Amino acid sequence: METMTGLWLEDRQLSLRENLLRPAQASGEALVRVRMAGVCATDLEMVRGYYPFTGILGHEFVGEVAAAPEPGWAGQRVVGEINAACGECEPCRAGRPTHCARRNVLGILNRNGAFAAFLSLPLVNLHRVPESVPDECAVFTEPLAAALQVQEQAPVRPTDRVLVIGAGRLGQLIAQTLALTGCELSVVARHPQQVALLMERGIRTVQAKEVADRSQDMVVEATGTPGGFEMACQAVRARGTIVLKSTYAGNVEINLSAVVVDEITLIGSRCGPFGPALRLLAEGRVDPRPLIAARYPLSQAVQAMQQAAQPGVLKVLIEMGE
Amino acid sequence: METMTGLWLEDRQLSLRENLLRPAQASGEALVRVRMAGVCATDLEMVRGYYPFTGILGHEFVGEVAAAPEPGWAGQRVVGEINAACGECEPCRAGRPTHCARRNVLGILNRNGAFAAFLSLPLVNLHRVPESVPDECAVFTEPLAAALQVQEQAPVRPTDRVLVIGAGRLGQLIAQTLALTGCELSVVARHPQQVALLMERGIRTVQAKEVADRSQDMVVEATGTPGGFEMACQAVRARGTIVLKSTYAGNVEINLSAVVVDEITLIGSRCGPFGPALRLLAEGRVDPRPLIAARYPLSQAVQAMQQAAQPGVLKVLIEMGE
Repeated sequence: METMTGLWLEDRQLSLRENLLRPAQASGEALVRVRMAGVCATDLEMVRGYYPFTGILGHEFVGEVAAAPEPGWAGQRVVGEINAACGECEPCRAGRPTHCARRNVLGILNRNGAFAAFLSLPLVNLHRVPESVPDECAVFTEPLAAALQVQEQAPVRPTDRVLVIGAGRLGQLIAQTLALTGCELSVVARHPQQVALLMERGIRTVQAKEVADRSQDMVVEATGTPGGFEMACQAVRARGTIVLKSTYAGNVEINLSAVVVDEITLIGSRCGPFGPALRLLAEGRVDPRPLIAARYPLSQAVQAMQQAAQPGVLKVLIEMGE
Repeated sequence: METMTGLWLEDRQLSLRENLLRPAQASGEALVRVRMAGVCATDLEMVRGYYPFTGILGHEFVGEVAAAPEPGWAGQRVVGEINAACGECEPCRAGRPTHCARRNVLGILNRNGAFAAFLSLPLVNLHRVPESVPDECAVFTEPLAAALQVQEQAPVRPTDRVLVIGAGRLGQLIAQTLALTGCELSVVARHPQQVALLMERGIRTVQAKEVADRSQDMVVEATGTPGGFEMACQAVRARGTIVLKSTYAGNVEINLSAVVVDEITLIGSRCGPFGPALRLLAEGRVDPRPLIAARYPLSQAVQAMQQAAQPGVLKVLIEMGE
């Protein structure tokens, strides 16, 4: 069996392992040689024990197909949806494969991830990357799709006043996708570099204290902190919508009576559509490259994770090399 | 000044007071002689201190106009929307008068209520009652409108599987309005009488333990208890909707990460449209009369409240007499 190097998580400990087996090519699955992968907040939370995963971390990647069960795929540059669905359970048959009851998830649940030389995914999960989209843009397809999922679940109109709380990795992409709508957009950003990136794109940033109570038609909470959630509840207007884009450590206390009296809608939002994300990257309407804080070779993946965990650091990429 | 009798709430104490002043007729307001009023869970919660109101309780009523600032209203039998709006604030101008920032609310907030011989409301709040709708149906217009608000906020299709948790006063009306849609409806009911009333209308009742996890497209939580909320979270499918129809005492702990991962939508829901409620009563498509547990004269309003507070008791009415 051929071996490969990968970033292994076990008992909250990260280690670079050199003698990992290459993924076996299961039925309907493609073997993908990873070119580049991105570190996501979820990866960092998994190291903190948010989810009991043992295996190779990583779910944001761009790569090329090394082997596939169908002709026409070998050598293609691809990105991949992270939820591998059974196709047979009730959510799958109802057209919600990302909620498959028996799913495994790349680098998150029962499937080794992208911080390695190779990964495996069902062919149906793969999307060809347009030639005009460089690797360092394509590697953002997964989080960009997650950002677009906000509008899949809660359509935004140019007449809406929208607040994004949090201007980190995901908050930046959410802000860029909301800016496409022509809505009256503000972003609560803490770190000077986050503010600068948004200002460069003409996106208004605000301090938390500047946000008027009950002023926003929609609030997107992208901090995953109780404080962020509380701010969202204060900022949203009666009959407004709060979209939750981040997971939270432990339970959060909520004044549900206020949700009832003010008729607030709370929407949890996770993975989104890859096709439109790739199109927006190809058209240059979203440009994630200014978010790149650092690039590390796979041999320094542990250091890459450490840097990504520093406050205010945006996207850290891991390059697999040859 | 003319005086009247009314049920007065002060410092969580109820008392029948005989020397209350009749409401003054403010500009644009009608004086309504109350014929019949209904006791709602909110009234009971206010006695428990849910909201610091001092004044005459009661917000569900049918009456007749004793005096009005416009011709054509005197003597008309009416029901009334309970939120008196300013017409000028941002929510009012945006077409959300029930969320007026300066509203007062009949028997709930800065306005004396319906458990008295007379009440006053803006003329724009009043709806004429069709002749075919008897008082004991019309008095349910307000809670029936609140039940209909579920579908104003979260449309239900015949293809949906819907669960109502709680079969009390409001749960019964919610069940009747959901049954109109042809959806696959079940209601978690505890008390034998609640079960019997639903069965008479051909509505399926279930025990909590019979509800499969993640089985429902929509869950309407009408108990206002943390246990009811928890059951709703378990019963709803991924990307499903939970509608909250009751207020909760204190904060509730929520696993917000599960809301995010399962992409659940949580919707708070309060007051609804009176016009369609009156039409459904006139057409006999909703019949609230089997919910009537007891009728008391105003002189026994304290006892009426005591009976309404007993577990499993549905609607208690208070009749004003001459």
